[in-house]
Amino acid sequence: MVHKLWEKKGEKLLKDVELFETGSDIELDGKFAQDDIMGSIAHGYMLSKIGILSSEEFKDAQKGLLEILKLIETGKEKLEFGDEDIHTKVENLLTERAGQVGKKIHTGRSRNDQVLVDMRLYAKRKLLNIWGEHLDLIDELLLNAQKYTSAPMPGYTHMQKAMPSSAGMWFGSFAESLMDSLVTLKAAYELNDQCPLGSAAAYGTTLPLDRELTARLLGFKKVQSNALYSQNSRGKIESVILFALVQQLFDISKLATDVLLFTTSEFQFFKVDDCLCTGSSIMPQKKNVDLAELLRSKVHVMESYLSQVFNGTANLPSGYNRDFQDTKKPFIEGLELAEQSLRVSYLLVHHLTPNEAALKKAMTPELYATAAAYDLVQKGVPFREAYQQIGLHLDELQKCDADEMLKKSTHLGGTGNLLIDKRLQELEKERAQYVAEHRRFTNAMNALETLTY
Amino acid sequence: MVHKLWEKKGEKLLKDVELFETGSDIELDGKFAQDDIMGSIAHGYMLSKIGILSSEEFKDAQKGLLEILKLIETGKEKLEFGDEDIHTKVENLLTERAGQVGKKIHTGRSRNDQVLVDMRLYAKRKLLNIWGEHLDLIDELLLNAQKYTSAPMPGYTHMQKAMPSSAGMWFGSFAESLMDSLVTLKAAYELNDQCPLGSAAAYGTTLPLDRELTARLLGFKKVQSNALYSQNSRGKIESVILFALVQQLFDISKLATDVLLFTTSEFQFFKVDDCLCTGSSIMPQKKNVDLAELLRSKVHVMESYLSQVFNGTANLPSGYNRDFQDTKKPFIEGLELAEQSLRVSYLLVHHLTPNEAALKKAMTPELYATAAAYDLVQKGVPFREAYQQIGLHLDELQKCDADEMLKKSTHLGGTGNLLIDKRLQELEKERAQYVAEHRRFTNAMNALETLTY
Amino acid sequence: MVHKLWEKKGEKLLKDVELFETGSDIELDGKFAQDDIMGSIAHGYMLSKIGILSSEEFKDAQKGLLEILKLIETGKEKLEFGDEDIHTKVENLLTERAGQVGKKIHTGRSRNDQVLVDMRLYAKRKLLNIWGEHLDLIDELLLNAQKYTSAPMPGYTHMQKAMPSSAGMWFGSFAESLMDSLVTLKAAYELNDQCPLGSAAAYGTTLPLDRELTARLLGFKKVQSNALYSQNSRGKIESVILFALVQQLFDISKLATDVLLFTTSEFQFFKVDDCLCTGSSIMPQKKNVDLAELLRSKVHVMESYLSQVFNGTANLPSGYNRDFQDTKKPFIEGLELAEQSLRVSYLLVHHLTPNEAALKKAMTPELYATAAAYDLVQKGVPFREAYQQIGLHLDELQKCDADEMLKKSTHLGGTGNLLIDKRLQELEKERAQYVAEHRRFTNAMNALETLTY
Amino acid sequence: MVHKLWEKKGEKLLKDVELFETGSDIELDGKFAQDDIMGSIAHGYMLSKIGILSSEEFKDAQKGLLEILKLIETGKEKLEFGDEDIHTKVENLLTERAGQVGKKIHTGRSRNDQVLVDMRLYAKRKLLNIWGEHLDLIDELLLNAQKYTSAPMPGYTHMQKAMPSSAGMWFGSFAESLMDSLVTLKAAYELNDQCPLGSAAAYGTTLPLDRELTARLLGFKKVQSNALYSQNSRGKIESVILFALVQQLFDISKLATDVLLFTTSEFQFFKVDDCLCTGSSIMPQKKNVDLAELLRSKVHVMESYLSQVFNGTANLPSGYNRDFQDTKKPFIEGLELAEQSLRVSYLLVHHLTPNEAALKKAMTPELYATAAAYDLVQKGVPFREAYQQIGLHLDELQKCDADEMLKKSTHLGGTGNLLIDKRLQELEKERAQYVAEHRRFTNAMNALETLTY
Repeated sequence: MVHKLWEKKGEKLLKDVELFETGSDIELDGKFAQDDIMGSIAHGYMLSKIGILSSEEFKDAQKGLLEILKLIETGKEKLEFGDEDIHTKVENLLTERAGQVGKKIHTGRSRNDQVLVDMRLYAKRKLLNIWGEHLDLIDELLLNAQKYTSAPMPGYTHMQKAMPSSAGMWFGSFAESLMDSLVTLKAAYELNDQCPLGSAAAYGTTLPLDRELTARLLGFKKVQSNALYSQNSRGKIESVILFALVQQLFDISKLATDVLLFTTSEFQFFKVDDCLCTGSSIMPQKKNVDLAELLRSKVHVMESYLSQVFNGTANLPSGYNRDFQDTKKPFIEGLELAEQSLRVSYLLVHHLTPNEAALKKAMTPELYATAAAYDLVQKGVPFREAYQQIGLHLDELQKCDADEMLKKSTHLGGTGNLLIDKRLQELEKERAQYVAEHRRFTNAMNALETLTY
Repeated sequence: MVHKLWEKKGEKLLKDVELFETGSDIELDGKFAQDDIMGSIAHGYMLSKIGILSSEEFKDAQKGLLEILKLIETGKEKLEFGDEDIHTKVENLLTERAGQVGKKIHTGRSRNDQVLVDMRLYAKRKLLNIWGEHLDLIDELLLNAQKYTSAPMPGYTHMQKAMPSSAGMWFGSFAESLMDSLVTLKAAYELNDQCPLGSAAAYGTTLPLDRELTARLLGFKKVQSNALYSQNSRGKIESVILFALVQQLFDISKLATDVLLFTTSEFQFFKVDDCLCTGSSIMPQKKNVDLAELLRSKVHVMESYLSQVFNGTANLPSGYNRDFQDTKKPFIEGLELAEQSLRVSYLLVHHLTPNEAALKKAMTPELYATAAAYDLVQKGVPFREAYQQIGLHLDELQKCDADEMLKKSTHLGGTGNLLIDKRLQELEKERAQYVAEHRRFTNAMNALETLTY
Repeated sequence: MVHKLWEKKGEKLLKDVELFETGSDIELDGKFAQDDIMGSIAHGYMLSKIGILSSEEFKDAQKGLLEILKLIETGKEKLEFGDEDIHTKVENLLTERAGQVGKKIHTGRSRNDQVLVDMRLYAKRKLLNIWGEHLDLIDELLLNAQKYTSAPMPGYTHMQKAMPSSAGMWFGSFAESLMDSLVTLKAAYELNDQCPLGSAAAYGTTLPLDRELTARLLGFKKVQSNALYSQNSRGKIESVILFALVQQLFDISKLATDVLLFTTSEFQFFKVDDCLCTGSSIMPQKKNVDLAELLRSKVHVMESYLSQVFNGTANLPSGYNRDFQDTKKPFIEGLELAEQSLRVSYLLVHHLTPNEAALKKAMTPELYATAAAYDLVQKGVPFREAYQQIGLHLDELQKCDADEMLKKSTHLGGTGNLLIDKRLQELEKERAQYVAEHRRFTNAMNALETLTY
Repeated sequence: MVHKLWEKKGEKLLKDVELFETGSDIELDGKFAQDDIMGSIAHGYMLSKIGILSSEEFKDAQKGLLEILKLIETGKEKLEFGDEDIHTKVENLLTERAGQVGKKIHTGRSRNDQVLVDMRLYAKRKLLNIWGEHLDLIDELLLNAQKYTSAPMPGYTHMQKAMPSSAGMWFGSFAESLMDSLVTLKAAYELNDQCPLGSAAAYGTTLPLDRELTARLLGFKKVQSNALYSQNSRGKIESVILFALVQQLFDISKLATDVLLFTTSEFQFFKVDDCLCTGSSIMPQKKNVDLAELLRSKVHVMESYLSQVFNGTANLPSGYNRDFQDTKKPFIEGLELAEQSLRVSYLLVHHLTPNEAALKKAMTPELYATAAAYDLVQKGVPFREAYQQIGLHLDELQKCDADEMLKKSTHLGGTGNLLIDKRLQELEKERAQYVAEHRRFTNAMNALETLTY
């Protein structure tokens, strides 16, 4: 256990209190090791540029920090109870290894802006993974939409049979929903992409820090300017990010809810491959799609992370408040959950097959009532009268050729005009944007390791 | 009371049930009258273009609908218990006034896509007001930030005095926070800006609807393509909008929390004009800033609207479900609350004056401890040692010239370099974008009234 | 518009601000008229007992207050924008009608404790209605459980067929769930049943108020003692009440979810009477159980009321804060919603009929796999081996006599031993407790009208 | 890794999916080891009584299970990825150690009722700790209330000075709030105190299980009767428990909020002992009450656990759904958090000292305005006139003898009549009830280890 930065003389925090205050946080802080060290390298380089470190000192710091990173990544150094946090741990280790420069590296910053930078970098790494998984899931949905464009499927409203639809329309609906969720995801990415380093405890410093330099080195799009706002954005930007993840899980949850309904033995519209199913400890016959149940549930898990971060930071006075610490756990868990959920959602869609025979059988005559009314409309009967006329003779409705019927809905977004190709083109554009952003960030991170004069 | 569209023979809904199902909804639907009628004009025009209405019929419909709108706006027609909803009411009134075309106007749509269009148009109108108020609030904050750039003020962390700050930094922090909230607001506006008309009950129709035409007439940026997704986006897009409003109130709530703390008789950092204060029924001496208390609270009101919409629609199967109806009330109330809250927040900021004497008096020596450490740093002492040295001699710290101290923080975003002018320039760009969008929408709405062949 | 109690000289609140601060509150306050006036009568009587009012003055006040109540109830006096609140309105009206005593009636209290009393009395009235509806719903469920005890029905886990169950077990499960919800409801009733009157603004007064007397007159079980706690319980007790209502809607929502699933054309397990169904504007064939959809949704509406009240009051400093005002609307709407939802839930259960033929047909062989394993167990095969053996020969399972199978589950709570009679007896005891409490409260209220020396 | 109970032939769950499904659950399940094994001993004993196990087999099972418990408690057996859950792990270990009886122990139960029993027993253990800590915290608050009964302290409304109060009233208010929170805590304890064992997968079994025997052996107050309700109560009873914990943290959060306000250098009303304070990495002078900040925050953490459990289970169809699994983590974390928070809250209260000099100094004249009005009232001036008269001459108000003033508020719950002794007596009764319940449960658990014929 290393000593705390602020401990003097014989002061000691009660152990129960320390446990309460830092317990699980220590473990979480470990996830930021890479981000913390990259932040310190950039900060150190900037300090050397404004004359607070010599170029030699910077090189020692860089070397020492990269070694410490390796020690942590290989498990040779570990955060433990009593270590306070990752920042203190790294500072102390650096002082042990590289001497004086360890005592200088914290110049011009506070743990307040340091943890902010760490969380932004961590979030960026995770969001890039999530963004990629998100695009893959859309891709898989669109491929299924294309493959099953002409597979008839009853459309439901109020959980009752309503009008003819298709498996293609069903797959496609989730793809478009996720396309819209990209808008919130990218807005969240953008808000996260600003560098708080140099805001210090929330009020800046009297040192001539070059904040634009550190922002650039760390791959941020801009500096988060007003120093107090940097702190006040804690909870705020995390909320925007978590809300974007909630949106993704909203889409996934609806998909999972449908899958569970449509795979009941009463519906049998879809089949989920055995490699995704589990059994029962008491009933020998059971085959359950637990995966879809857990995906249905995750939207609530994610939403509780959002509300935890949000409610815990709303109503706080300006400036840093320790309450912020409680945002870390739900934020980290949320980012990890989204990444994992998107990946297994891809697997669910990949291993989901329409049961075309059952779907066709389910295309019963009442589904065509509206189309029958429209036939009358096209003969000049006002719709409301046609509607009433059909309503009085529902028993005369006949089963139609479902395939033909799908093709008759030719307007934009109808079963006969789903525009999947156009969606695939849009997806390619999205992917190009993603790849460019991914490269930009990765390059910045790599450059930090070899930064030199 | 008009008859319900689907009522036949002697079927009657139990009165208790009807009350439960439509109660407050009828009143809310009245707010959509304008939107519903504009939607019907656009839809009718399109129907005439694809040959379902004659051009005469369209003109009759347009005339009749505009008259009905006037009747509703002047209170001569009112939605009442038993009317089911605004759509049925208008259709029935139109049939009364214009005959056959009333029975034809619903051709090719469902109340499902109709209410969606209404809500999108209503949201647009409200969001444009909100967007404007949002910009005004930023403006007022920046003007104050500029005015009080050099007014010293203690900066707090953990609610304890930390480092020197300024009233300018404090005002500016909220301006920047609201600048970031514009990103979520505009993303929400964009997602709302797609036209669901023509998706019908969720599965399109067998009629050759020209969805691009109606979208264009109604001023939408694009068609919401996949018909099923249009319905599945209920709850989703409302959530994105409400979350953007939650973000605004998050900023406002923090401002209000600070105002309440800083206007206590113990702090006395700010004064709120009497025209915003209220008294007590029992204590003759009281002067309370109730406005700030209610603004502190509203973030939770808004968040509950969000959670109501969100949780009520997550986990629903695909397609229309009546649960959607419960999204209307929180959605409408949320939009109205945001508009009102932004306006009075402007008033609060406008009538808020720093008490410069009290602020200066509060600039006690301990605020300069870090600056003192940095002085040692600039003499070559490693920061961690400087920090410890100062820590051991806190009682020797001296009151500094606060004005001078503020100027010494020259890095980007520090008290001496708040960049308010740059922010004001950015605001002007934002305002130009807003004005253009406002004009685009207003023009589209006006054009519908005079649409002709 | 009457003048505000604290207005002096030319002070005026900005109109936008007043609108923001009291807008919908005025309308809500009207709901407390009866409670406010009963509170004032009790308070006045106590003041006369401690010598602040003469007995004549009390009689004038009592007479005047009862007249004012009648005027409000018959709509001859109305709260309007500008009236501030019900308390000010009534005080001013009383002064107009009864002179001096109007200026004395507020002695020894604050609007802070007055609104608390009003809300407690209002809540009590509503909770008594809710409690009664709650018992009726359990009753109807138990009667159905009894009637359909031997109607076989597949039991599901993971939404897949699992084991034999019965319609009786299904109805009974909701009855027992609601029995448990009574525990939280009664705990909430108990916490609400304490009198805050006399706590004044939150710190009591220097007058020798007899708080036990007013508590007794108003039918409260006890005085809420510590004056500061009375205020601090705002939000807290409302939350406990709203949570109890959330519990009820949790039960109802699950019932509604099942009804919607089991009335799909794919399941057809239950039929809902036409008097509860609605149609579609576009599809002539539709018959939807909208009622169940809205009941499924209401749990989220209620939960958002709870979160609004809860989050809006958590983290407030001690004592009255104006934020409390925002608890009124969700609290009132929550109580009204619960009452209404319970009533229509009763109707839903009343008009719900198992389709016994469809249920029997659905009793397919795989439901008996576990019973088959148990047959082997009873022949001495260890369960895990029996389970595996059956699992390998699922295709040999046979359709059993479902009626016989139900009877074979004889353990407590099994299909053959549901103990409905015992539940009905427990319900009778609950009803007796309810009736006694209802009478106690009604008697107290009536006595206030005729209170004399 | 042991094999899964339902795995046959070559079926294999995809690894990504298995990770997603069981990841952190495995770790959580370890917390139930003791509960799972006690449940199995009771179940085994019952099976021997109804002839499914021989008495020898029961003894082998009991011995084996207790050994397995010891192995797990000492870390010699550990749940790992691939183990599915604690139930499967224990069953497999028992089969390894004790042979045939391992294959029989699952007779007549499902993992569905088994995990329910585990969670109920776990919750009981934790709730008993929490209940005890809760009483200790009240005790400490009452002792402080008693000690500082006559220490004057300004009372606030709207965060502005309002009327005279005392440190005793302040401490006492939290004690009474927590007394009320005991009502919800005990209601939650009661609902948790019913035994679901024997409900199996949700539909009971065809075996003659003696459910009353197992309930009694495990120390439950009653059997949870209807088998389906047992499953349907998942999420419900956990919610009731978590809500009770939310109530506790509501009280604690308000206390912490006050502490943070009252320990600012502007107020200085209280002092927190250094053993609870922490420092800053950048500002040498800082001394922060982080503990209070984190306690202020925890109410939101707890509330998010509640909403996660609640929203994740509302709207699910009847019977077991895998979504239930996601209730475990927030439920366990919530119980642990409450226990820990109560303990450190005790420390906070214990180490909190009123700064009597500062408090006295803060008793400024405006606090006495209402008392001055009451002086006029007692001379016959109607209150409303007295109020106005004082309001016009606020500057003539004089500083009073605060000690005297406190004594003048003699009504029940006023500063001169706080009834702390009565509260202490009530607390003793509560403690006696707690101790009895604690003993009852501990005895039941101990008896299971030595259960014999």
